Amino acid sequence: MEIKIVKTTNLKEKTKEDALAFGVHFTDHMFMMDYTEGIGWHDATIMPYGPIELMPSSMVLHYAQEVFEGLKAYKTPNGETQLFRPQENLKRMNRSNERMCIPQIDEDFVLEALKTLVKLDENWIPNSPGTSLYIRPFVFATDPFIGVRVSKQYKFMIIMSPVGSYYKGGMAPERIYVEDEYARTVRGGTGEAKCGGNYAGGLAAQQKVSTKGFEQILWLDGVERKYIEEVGTSNVFFLIDDVFVTPSLSGTILPGITRKSVIELLKHWGKTVAERRITIDELYEAYQQGRIQEAFATGTAAVISPIGTLGWKDIEMTFNNGEIGEYAQKIYDTLYGMQTGNVADQLNWIVKI
Amino acid sequence: MEIKIVKTTNLKEKTKEDALAFGVHFTDHMFMMDYTEGIGWHDATIMPYGPIELMPSSMVLHYAQEVFEGLKAYKTPNGETQLFRPQENLKRMNRSNERMCIPQIDEDFVLEALKTLVKLDENWIPNSPGTSLYIRPFVFATDPFIGVRVSKQYKFMIIMSPVGSYYKGGMAPERIYVEDEYARTVRGGTGEAKCGGNYAGGLAAQQKVSTKGFEQILWLDGVERKYIEEVGTSNVFFLIDDVFVTPSLSGTILPGITRKSVIELLKHWGKTVAERRITIDELYEAYQQGRIQEAFATGTAAVISPIGTLGWKDIEMTFNNGEIGEYAQKIYDTLYGMQTGNVADQLNWIVKI
Ligand SMILES: Cc1ncc(COP(=O)(O)O)c(C=O)c1O
Ligand SMILES: Cc1ncc(COP(=O)(O)O)c(C=O)c1O
Repeated sequence: MEIKIVKTTNLKEKTKEDALAFGVHFTDHMFMMDYTEGIGWHDATIMPYGPIELMPSSMVLHYAQEVFEGLKAYKTPNGETQLFRPQENLKRMNRSNERMCIPQIDEDFVLEALKTLVKLDENWIPNSPGTSLYIRPFVFATDPFIGVRVSKQYKFMIIMSPVGSYYKGGMAPERIYVEDEYARTVRGGTGEAKCGGNYAGGLAAQQKVSTKGFEQILWLDGVERKYIEEVGTSNVFFLIDDVFVTPSLSGTILPGITRKSVIELLKHWGKTVAERRITIDELYEAYQQGRIQEAFATGTAAVISPIGTLGWKDIEMTFNNGEIGEYAQKIYDTLYGMQTGNVADQLNWIVKI
Repeated sequence: MEIKIVKTTNLKEKTKEDALAFGVHFTDHMFMMDYTEGIGWHDATIMPYGPIELMPSSMVLHYAQEVFEGLKAYKTPNGETQLFRPQENLKRMNRSNERMCIPQIDEDFVLEALKTLVKLDENWIPNSPGTSLYIRPFVFATDPFIGVRVSKQYKFMIIMSPVGSYYKGGMAPERIYVEDEYARTVRGGTGEAKCGGNYAGGLAAQQKVSTKGFEQILWLDGVERKYIEEVGTSNVFFLIDDVFVTPSLSGTILPGITRKSVIELLKHWGKTVAERRITIDELYEAYQQGRIQEAFATGTAAVISPIGTLGWKDIEMTFNNGEIGEYAQKIYDTLYGMQTGNVADQLNWIVKI
């Protein structure tokens, strides 16, 4: 498929790098293509960023048949533009699409479209420490039909937002709360898909923990309410007795690309990683025995978020004296270093544009 | 709040009543109002039905913060227009809104808006047997922001679609399959809210049962996978030993307005209704003992759907010889009769326009 390119005639003013927030400003262009049953994907176009027209009966507005991805583009010190494992995001998108009965996208074609778009808006990539260009591919059902069935029409889009440093004053340990009332998902549900419904369903719990003075939720499994799953929009690791423990991908957890990279990096360093089920009771016992050396969350937004305090019922566990752990810092420096071209790409994760 | 009315100058052609499908055609007008944090709901307008503009960053397209309702308007033999328990739908909408962190709507105001809209497009209400005007109020997050948090902007809309008879050739018993792989929701999840994510998540199971030759899914609870919850987009009743058994509202089931009405009607008739937990094993045992007299599903779309066959693993249970049961028919005739003004409204459920 050819990509039609319609350039804007009206370049927007860029936000100052020190005033960048997350997900508020968007670049000059966006990518869009449509799917029609019987025809497939068609009309791939890069066009000026702006509003789209939808019928109010569009299925996405009623039944949430929608999937998204999130990755970043970075500028290297010598001005090159690079992406971090973008194929992994497109593969995951197709797995999410499958779960949500959305047609598959051509991963190679979409990667080319994504590169073309990033290239075109390259001067939107900020380069102060911690900044990047966040890239949001997403797909949603546009069939103008209000009945519960699989949509026959979709739109796939890519929009991009220059984002500031996740930690304004440098990396800082977070306060996380173990949620035992609300559930994010359950086995047989949509937990391993990056679909909208998982996030809308989590908002009430997010509001609840904020009022308790915590920043994020640690989700437990929906069935037994004891197995640790993930933290907000990140996966979680605990360093216990020199072993990096992270919940195994049981079907209810989002398979994070940062999670996968951290596991591979730790193994590359000769460390022991255990992907296994771990209960909150086991964690608390290890905590009481002084066996937890570090805890951190992993995700595209912040790369690594050290967990300073974990609240559970009326207990508060503090890890590593509430300070950034040795490995949290080392993994962050290595991954973010690779992403920005400051550390050698030993594991072949970087795609240059 | 005043409702601004902008009438169409271009009335659409109506579909022939015998060619009406569900949710495909829409009337001449729609209602829309916007919510802005700090201002509340504003700009209530009835306008010609047509496309809306959304930013591609609108939160609904990413995180599915959205809720909907469904009810119907009917024509009586002497040409009056009436609604069935519309306040119940608006109350439920506000409960769904609360679960999804969406601001409350003013139920009285929205009922007035809904009546005004129905009145304006009154000549779209079909009146052949089984037909009606389906009304779809819905609300979704429009904040142009891509981060996971509660939206600060929303659109509330009402669109309407003339719908044909649910059963082309008269009411007919359906084939339902007990789903034991996929889950719709779980305690602590969003099951009792009418939010988009619940429906998108169910599509894969719906596709699976279709390929097995069944029409709908009977969902089991997400935790123990044995308690009966609901059927597709309806609630379920079994007549066992002269008791009408329906799953209790446990927090994971949509509290159907048809369900509520059927319970009230049966009690009004002096029948015994048990709202309680019931497992699929208990049902199968009762079936083997010949104690199940009838089974039917209840919902706005079809009012009553008799269940002819229930598939579970490789067992097929047939109720009432696969024929429409006495009570399925009687309840249908009474409810649909009240809705269309052919049966006296003894329980005060009808709102005339
Ligand atoms: C629910 C959830 N878990 C985990 C992650 C981390 O995944 P990744 O490392 O690919 O960003 C994300 C964010 O993408 C997420 O939304
Ligand atoms: C999941 C679900 N259960 C049950 C129902 C039945 O509810 P009601 O009788 O209010 O239409 C519906 C439809 O609204 C539904 O979507």
